[in-house]
Amino acid sequence: MIRLSTAAPDFEPAFQALLHQARETTEQVDDAVAAIIAAVRARGDAALCEFTARFDRMDVTPGQLRIAPEEIDAAVAAVPAALHEALDLAARRIEAFHTAQLPTDLKLTDAEGLTLGMRWTPLDAVGIYVPGGKAAYPSSVLMNAIPARAAGVGRIAMCVPTPGGVLNPLVLAAARRAGVTEIYRVGGAQAVAALAWGTASIAPVDRIVGPGNAYVAAAKRQVFGRVGIDSIAGPSEVVVVAGAANDPRRVAIDLLAQAEHDEAAQSILITDDAGFADAVAEAVTAEIPTLPRAAIAGASWDHHGAIILVRNWDEAASLTDRLAPEHLEVLTPDPAAFFAQVRHAGAAFLGPFCPEAVGDYVAGPNHVLPTGRTARFASGLSVFDFLKRTTWIAADQAALERVGPAAVALAEAEGLQAHGRSIAVRLGNGPAD
Amino acid sequence: MIRLSTAAPDFEPAFQALLHQARETTEQVDDAVAAIIAAVRARGDAALCEFTARFDRMDVTPGQLRIAPEEIDAAVAAVPAALHEALDLAARRIEAFHTAQLPTDLKLTDAEGLTLGMRWTPLDAVGIYVPGGKAAYPSSVLMNAIPARAAGVGRIAMCVPTPGGVLNPLVLAAARRAGVTEIYRVGGAQAVAALAWGTASIAPVDRIVGPGNAYVAAAKRQVFGRVGIDSIAGPSEVVVVAGAANDPRRVAIDLLAQAEHDEAAQSILITDDAGFADAVAEAVTAEIPTLPRAAIAGASWDHHGAIILVRNWDEAASLTDRLAPEHLEVLTPDPAAFFAQVRHAGAAFLGPFCPEAVGDYVAGPNHVLPTGRTARFASGLSVFDFLKRTTWIAADQAALERVGPAAVALAEAEGLQAHGRSIAVRLGNGPAD
Repeated sequence: MIRLSTAAPDFEPAFQALLHQARETTEQVDDAVAAIIAAVRARGDAALCEFTARFDRMDVTPGQLRIAPEEIDAAVAAVPAALHEALDLAARRIEAFHTAQLPTDLKLTDAEGLTLGMRWTPLDAVGIYVPGGKAAYPSSVLMNAIPARAAGVGRIAMCVPTPGGVLNPLVLAAARRAGVTEIYRVGGAQAVAALAWGTASIAPVDRIVGPGNAYVAAAKRQVFGRVGIDSIAGPSEVVVVAGAANDPRRVAIDLLAQAEHDEAAQSILITDDAGFADAVAEAVTAEIPTLPRAAIAGASWDHHGAIILVRNWDEAASLTDRLAPEHLEVLTPDPAAFFAQVRHAGAAFLGPFCPEAVGDYVAGPNHVLPTGRTARFASGLSVFDFLKRTTWIAADQAALERVGPAAVALAEAEGLQAHGRSIAVRLGNGPAD
Repeated sequence: MIRLSTAAPDFEPAFQALLHQARETTEQVDDAVAAIIAAVRARGDAALCEFTARFDRMDVTPGQLRIAPEEIDAAVAAVPAALHEALDLAARRIEAFHTAQLPTDLKLTDAEGLTLGMRWTPLDAVGIYVPGGKAAYPSSVLMNAIPARAAGVGRIAMCVPTPGGVLNPLVLAAARRAGVTEIYRVGGAQAVAALAWGTASIAPVDRIVGPGNAYVAAAKRQVFGRVGIDSIAGPSEVVVVAGAANDPRRVAIDLLAQAEHDEAAQSILITDDAGFADAVAEAVTAEIPTLPRAAIAGASWDHHGAIILVRNWDEAASLTDRLAPEHLEVLTPDPAAFFAQVRHAGAAFLGPFCPEAVGDYVAGPNHVLPTGRTARFASGLSVFDFLKRTTWIAADQAALERVGPAAVALAEAEGLQAHGRSIAVRLGNGPAD
């Protein structure tokens, strides 16, 4: 953990170093991924089965790639009732928030008499990638699938590796609750290839979302254009902006809730009180050993954690914008006023009773958020990821005559004669050409 | 040009072939582009000047990379008044439509007492790439820059190659009218690298939009993640759905307005009348030699043009969806009803007085649209490309107590103890840990 103070003469270079600290080691897997995609395009299901045998240590036939309804039934039955209820509360709230996001179509007739519109329609089919192993989170299944369903997507195909053949009951229960229409026991770049290009067993989709390892990320990059993809997620981060009125232990736990995700995760406290900074640092140190994931949380805090002492909340807002954090907890005296000053953050949690974890699971807004300062230009997952727009224009001859001549002039200036002519032949008072 | 009929027994394979016809030869330029980006990152302006000398045959110093205000003044003064007026009409209408697109923030308090919101904010800075040479279109400058300004973006940096040092006055006039804040005479992958990473002369931006050649497209792919990018545009296409009540020559010109863009462009007529199909085909043949771009339009029509005869408009709607065209002209007896049946298209032009060209220049909706069947999942450029969302949550203790226990249960099921604890310590009636 490093400590910075805006009052220190060397603050700016130290903050720059924090801002550009590399937290990810990008594996060079592009060539391996290109070969996997080419194999799936060429040999379809046969290639999927081979890769699954090799990477997930399990033999499957093409007919077994899709997880059968009875297997899902059995897995769902194994989930305790309390967890079903928790999943249901989360699903219901996520669905309500994402339904509220749904945009309305636009239609206007303007002074020149043209009617212009913009219509939103859902994608036909989307693919959801769910990692296996340590990052197999049922909450992520809800967060990826429910917005697609809220948008009106008819077909939601999920791919999840099941190394050694082991199914994760809670992941399957979440998928069923979220309205996933089909689930395949396929992972890695081969899953992305199958979703993008299709095989005999897996029909192609229009967009692929969901987190994954370096192979999955590289595969998504390579199929981008053939299908849509979501952002390539990096390690997670939180900025907690907190004054001395807070309980240091609560703030420490909030920082550690981020740190326990991953050694590359980053937790940053910004405070205006040096004594509070000390108290939080002590509380973090005391709390780490009590966590099951102490090693991960400790490594994250040691290598990437930071406490920044500011002279006032204006400074804190300005630094927050430069960090453009995925998660922002605002525990200042006036959270709403502080949030109004901030421009760049994936999601904000306002006040002392909004730990980030409530947003990770049940609040309703999405927990798939832009990482690594990409909140400068990117947004969390939403219904907008599963909708597209068609603009449209309608005009009668009178309207065309009001705007057409300008279009003809521009078309001719651009050397596009047929463009101009397509308008000119429709102008009653103009030459037919 | 090929002719298909849905009544023919071999229709489906022939339509599939049309659907998957390769119109683009993708150059393998990734390695060259990676080297250019690395050079710009390492050596900044010096690398930009070297690449400009090599690719655009002109010597510039770092101080000359930015086009000076006086040069823009001089160029703008050279544009005839009629074109200024046309640009102004176009700009005003594009601005009005994109301003109407601006979304509203969301805020709701739900049954459990949580307040949830979604706030839209503009990007700080965007880069607009404008190609030189044959594709240097002032209309594209308007279509890329005005949505950014309508969204509230403060800084709009434009890069345009000026081979041999020649400026395009209309492009500069459009940039000034659109509110571009700075213009650089830099093109190719080096321009994308500079916009993404910054140099001493060109401050980095948050998102890069605009069309370009294979090098520009590859560079955008490679900087994706560091900055946002727009879709990688392929060759343009139009589907015209027209009944026999139309003038065959008008429809022919509409098809050719697409074909004259590029030999790889594609124009498709779908009609329910064989005689009308013949008449349009004849009109196209008659019209081509009268066009300045006859060679390009003729090659496009010969290699990629198609006329599809359908038995009814339902078939036409279904085929349109499978083609998911960039542009869709609807000249059927009831254009609005037909459009309501279609799900996938970038932009639609309804009725006999809406040739696509009116949308290319002055109607208001954007002409930067998804190509190559990507309208299945992608949308035209809009204010949404220059905005991002921050979701937010506020709760008091009572609200947290209603939803918190479910979150704790899910966190524990996912093995994320600190997540659960961050909520548990805030629950008044729960254990402090």
